[in-house]
Amino acid sequence: MRPRSYWGWGYEDAALEPERRRQLALLVGTQIDASQLAALAPRPLDAVALPPPRVAAPAALAPILRFDARERAGHTYGKAYRDVVRALRGEFEPAPDAVALPRSDAEVAAVLEWCSENGYAAIPYGGGSSVVGGVEARCKADFPAAVSIDLRRLAGLIEVDASSRAALIAAGTYGPAIEDALKPHGMTLRHYPQSFELSTLGGWLATRAGGHFATLHTHIDDLTESLTAITPRGTIETRRLPASGAGPAPERLLLGSEGAFGIITRAWMRVVPRPTFRASSTVRFADFYAGARAARALAQSGLYPANCRLLDARETLLNGVGDGSASFLLVAFESADHPLDAWLERALELCREHGGVPGGGEAAPRLDLADGAGDDASARWRRMFLRAPYLRDALIELGVVVETFETAVLWRDFEALHRSLLETAQRAAGAVCGSALVTSRITHVYPDGAAPYFTVIAPGRAGSHVSQWDEIKAAVSDAIVAGGATITHHHAVGRDHRPWYQEERAALFGASLRAVKAELDPAGVLNPGVLI
Amino acid sequence: MRPRSYWGWGYEDAALEPERRRQLALLVGTQIDASQLAALAPRPLDAVALPPPRVAAPAALAPILRFDARERAGHTYGKAYRDVVRALRGEFEPAPDAVALPRSDAEVAAVLEWCSENGYAAIPYGGGSSVVGGVEARCKADFPAAVSIDLRRLAGLIEVDASSRAALIAAGTYGPAIEDALKPHGMTLRHYPQSFELSTLGGWLATRAGGHFATLHTHIDDLTESLTAITPRGTIETRRLPASGAGPAPERLLLGSEGAFGIITRAWMRVVPRPTFRASSTVRFADFYAGARAARALAQSGLYPANCRLLDARETLLNGVGDGSASFLLVAFESADHPLDAWLERALELCREHGGVPGGGEAAPRLDLADGAGDDASARWRRMFLRAPYLRDALIELGVVVETFETAVLWRDFEALHRSLLETAQRAAGAVCGSALVTSRITHVYPDGAAPYFTVIAPGRAGSHVSQWDEIKAAVSDAIVAGGATITHHHAVGRDHRPWYQEERAALFGASLRAVKAELDPAGVLNPGVLI
Repeated sequence: MRPRSYWGWGYEDAALEPERRRQLALLVGTQIDASQLAALAPRPLDAVALPPPRVAAPAALAPILRFDARERAGHTYGKAYRDVVRALRGEFEPAPDAVALPRSDAEVAAVLEWCSENGYAAIPYGGGSSVVGGVEARCKADFPAAVSIDLRRLAGLIEVDASSRAALIAAGTYGPAIEDALKPHGMTLRHYPQSFELSTLGGWLATRAGGHFATLHTHIDDLTESLTAITPRGTIETRRLPASGAGPAPERLLLGSEGAFGIITRAWMRVVPRPTFRASSTVRFADFYAGARAARALAQSGLYPANCRLLDARETLLNGVGDGSASFLLVAFESADHPLDAWLERALELCREHGGVPGGGEAAPRLDLADGAGDDASARWRRMFLRAPYLRDALIELGVVVETFETAVLWRDFEALHRSLLETAQRAAGAVCGSALVTSRITHVYPDGAAPYFTVIAPGRAGSHVSQWDEIKAAVSDAIVAGGATITHHHAVGRDHRPWYQEERAALFGASLRAVKAELDPAGVLNPGVLI
Repeated sequence: MRPRSYWGWGYEDAALEPERRRQLALLVGTQIDASQLAALAPRPLDAVALPPPRVAAPAALAPILRFDARERAGHTYGKAYRDVVRALRGEFEPAPDAVALPRSDAEVAAVLEWCSENGYAAIPYGGGSSVVGGVEARCKADFPAAVSIDLRRLAGLIEVDASSRAALIAAGTYGPAIEDALKPHGMTLRHYPQSFELSTLGGWLATRAGGHFATLHTHIDDLTESLTAITPRGTIETRRLPASGAGPAPERLLLGSEGAFGIITRAWMRVVPRPTFRASSTVRFADFYAGARAARALAQSGLYPANCRLLDARETLLNGVGDGSASFLLVAFESADHPLDAWLERALELCREHGGVPGGGEAAPRLDLADGAGDDASARWRRMFLRAPYLRDALIELGVVVETFETAVLWRDFEALHRSLLETAQRAAGAVCGSALVTSRITHVYPDGAAPYFTVIAPGRAGSHVSQWDEIKAAVSDAIVAGGATITHHHAVGRDHRPWYQEERAALFGASLRAVKAELDPAGVLNPGVLI
């Protein structure tokens, strides 16, 4: 198995080369005051002190339980900035006492039974790419043991129903493996979160992951036909149906349940043929908000572009789409059925009506991460998209505070909230870090609103990296909830967003979720501290 | 107020004229053996014996409680065939003891408090168009009183957010009133169930109503931005958001809850401008299943037609679209943004590839029930659509057993299930009624399946109408659930579908719903007997 980093994103052999790191350091120096950066360096794994495991394997579970340092360290955190920093500093107090690697539903049930009987915290683990503390045993002290339950051995394409265009996929399957398995069937799931390389179907479902599509089927929810989850009380398997009006939708109670109700082990997903028709353009806007109004017009047009991302001027500079003097909207249509000229023509008309100038910038990327070859602009963009987390890790090692936050808000409130978040982030990061670069984009658009996404890059101080980011994050999260928006459009709640989630959520809906948890997880062992 | 029938559908003054009834009787005679029909005749309301109310109004609630025969009789049943027959026979045992007409959230809460404290069954009532026993106090004997809570005074358009294209609408607003109120804003909800004339927004939300759109946004769920519900424990108001990834979707727990968790009092709904571009065609198919394969191709094409209804040969004859020799697919696109020639052109190409011949039959109808004027084919079709329930009542008075059933199923299983349901209905109706006409259509299509809809017309026997239909219904419901389909695509569960719903639903999901109900409705008074 290709070794994964125990402290950061991805595969060890894919980390940035020294020359790229030097270029990155120079680039950072042009954007923020990098003179006092406090670098962080990973230490060898055998130099990392892990708290000793507080539990041993019962005979029946011995074949699927791991207690070695690499597994325990690798399962201690997700991949948020604050996770990577703590791992780099060798802080592994929340390390799970054991890592379970079940190979079947029965083994998942057996692990849950062991945890329930002994009151051990049971923390489901997909690809471990959570950026909200979703897989961290922060609750560890309250339980005699904490067990990370990694689904990676429950992987693979199980069945394809070509007529209904659906595929049964095991929850522990990683993004690229899903696409590789569907390819011989001429099908694709087309769900491309930025974590694609190292996140799993089960993780996407449990967190209501946002995909790469900017309109219509933006979340994994929309692609889900039915799913199977193992709870401490037994199995929930929802019926495969194209639609139903029979009671509240059962899938919707499990989508977004973040492992608090059960462990999703497989799902029938709606798949599509690989697109053969494409039409796309970049559109330049001197004003970001004019671009946003064009994006709104597109979202309300019924044209349903696959891509409709608006990058602000600073983002275009950073990712090479533009020169930093204007915002760019990336508009793309794709279809396996029909040419899209009429679609793109009308989309560009709408953009022009809002002051946009089609063309310029890098070509809008093809949306097909499964297809990584080629040296055109699209292929470069796709590799860039997948490389971004590695780049982020290199920035963290340089000592930079680098993190993102995101939300969704009604169009009515969009401009005010967007301005307020830019200002809040800039002010908070300035106060905490001295200087900061804050960039933004719109990642998804809806008829009634949009999902803006922000990146903060600021100089970190030795020993304070985590608290610096936590202060910035608290300021922007307060502004998000006060501004009528959601604490997360697609990063989930986890443990980090919980205070704001509780403000956003109706109290009696929270009480309803607690009632469901008490029913399905009477011992209260499943992912304690998320959602509830 | 225009008087409503106490026993059947709709307004008294809109019932079929004698001449139309005579024509109808002749038509029926060409389809089934009508020689022994046992006619049913409504009696004057004052000749109907209602059980005396078992409760009196407390002073605080006196202004909003009604005990008169018209209100109590009118709130006894929904509008299923078995409801209308029982009402025509003067059987009003399940009559609620009182009808509450709250004018505000506070009054809804006060009624719920009164019911909770005294253990009275509290049955939410929208337009009363349930065809599944959803508003019937069948549980009456188990409670000291049953109160029907009619939301009709909580009506009207409250606020429009033009920028986000959303409207806040009170739950008791009927379909036509919603469209009338939105019209001056240039907006429309475009949700047209066949019950449009006498069903309410709140009823649509509580039952996950299916609209008139055949693809994409087929259910009211998809149009719902946020909603407010009053429970015995207090109010749940979900945050207005275009999308969110924060925990399980709160709206989805209330959509389809059928009044068992709370009473929905208002909702922010996604509205759209009135369409200005239209493109439509009928397509003739010699074989119904060839038509179904064309509908599947359309559903999987990404073209998203607003209408994609396939009528079998017998249906085309009955509703005047064709001559009964072939099936017809009605395909229609609509947009407020762009011409649709490219869309329709590709749709017809797909139909031809599956053996369809565009043209012939009546022109495909314009989908705009709010706009009832005109004398073209579309206007006639719209009036026909709204008149159908009145026609149904006239058939019932003639003594005909006339009812529909519907489901949704994967494409993989579609043909087998469709054949099995036609055969089962024909066999069961033949056995019970001697002869029968069974027709079918596809009302909604999805990439992974379709929603077929069936109509049964058979001669009824005096005194046995209800049991005749119940036997047919049980046979087809068994076949639906055994065939992997859902007991309802858009008619909801109510009391009539519950045995099959329980087979279809995962047991632990049912346990979760019970846990939520115990939390929100600790006295267990809300709509007892539905869902749980």
